[in-house]
Amino acid sequence: MGQGFTSDQLRLRPLEADDHRRVVAVIDRWWGGRPMSGRLSHVFFIHFRPTSFVLECDGDLLGFLIGLVSQTAPDEAYVHFVGVHPEYRRLGLGRRLYGRFCTVAGLLGCEVARSHTSPQNRLSIAFHQSQGFAIDPGDGEVDGVSVWRDYAGPGEHRVRFVKRLGFVVPAMSRAPRPALGSEPATAVGW
Amino acid sequence: MGQGFTSDQLRLRPLEADDHRRVVAVIDRWWGGRPMSGRLSHVFFIHFRPTSFVLECDGDLLGFLIGLVSQTAPDEAYVHFVGVHPEYRRLGLGRRLYGRFCTVAGLLGCEVARSHTSPQNRLSIAFHQSQGFAIDPGDGEVDGVSVWRDYAGPGEHRVRFVKRLGFVVPAMSRAPRPALGSEPATAVGW
Repeated sequence: MGQGFTSDQLRLRPLEADDHRRVVAVIDRWWGGRPMSGRLSHVFFIHFRPTSFVLECDGDLLGFLIGLVSQTAPDEAYVHFVGVHPEYRRLGLGRRLYGRFCTVAGLLGCEVARSHTSPQNRLSIAFHQSQGFAIDPGDGEVDGVSVWRDYAGPGEHRVRFVKRLGFVVPAMSRAPRPALGSEPATAVGW
Repeated sequence: MGQGFTSDQLRLRPLEADDHRRVVAVIDRWWGGRPMSGRLSHVFFIHFRPTSFVLECDGDLLGFLIGLVSQTAPDEAYVHFVGVHPEYRRLGLGRRLYGRFCTVAGLLGCEVARSHTSPQNRLSIAFHQSQGFAIDPGDGEVDGVSVWRDYAGPGEHRVRFVKRLGFVVPAMSRAPRPALGSEPATAVGW
């Protein structure tokens, strides 16, 4: 596969359990040699498929997003892990993955999406802001950015992001809706 | 704290986000020096509190269980990580943690609980079987035990367990229930 592709060739699909093997095989390289694969438990590839996606082109893995709905706060969705092939960055693939995630999270009833990154990752901070995420003010500051101190472990400060998802109405039908009539809403039986 | 305690001193409570720090501080030691802390993302301590628990005695951490409801199959609950202080094993603490997890998972509507372990961990296999978990037949065998090959990554075979949770009715009231009368169930408005 060359570096060029048209959007017709891109396929964004739900994560499969077998994608764990494919992602683990490339992820350390995608992170410039940093050992990341141990952090990517197969659990995420099995139990969070509704909010996790893969981007492919002609069968090649170009990116993935692992997200979940918080079970502590079910109106919040959370981006756990995102990766884009280093040769295919700045082409809008991250925007596609985040866009699908936020749409699905909204359909599942989530009111906000959350994400976080390390304060050193200026590209990630700029990316989140470009996607409508605001920085969630924390209890510390690193290089002028507000962080949540020790958020991911001792010394592991993180910039937290939050985005309000708004109200998403799924398109069930194109048929005209019946008139609701003049009964007040309180007449509805539940 | 000495090794002895009475069951009155034990406290089983929902996991708090701050427990991440406490668990990470002890877990490598609990696993006999094996580096485990990198596998325990703070995500689990934030987003899966309804099905995750800590056991304490006089404020000391004796054990924890991190569980979740599968978002791919919401009628399945999954034990992700369990640890018991090495000086307090074989005292029934694991049974307490699993018992609470299975009860809560049943109340949340899950029909089965799942767990897994490595085929070398004979104690874990025996423990799961003693708690009513059956081995879920896989596609391979290690030392006479059925395994799911490459389940947690290349070469990482796992024994999978499954337990049917049965039907749990929460005790809402001790008052006698009103008679249902002679109307057929289909008369209920929803």
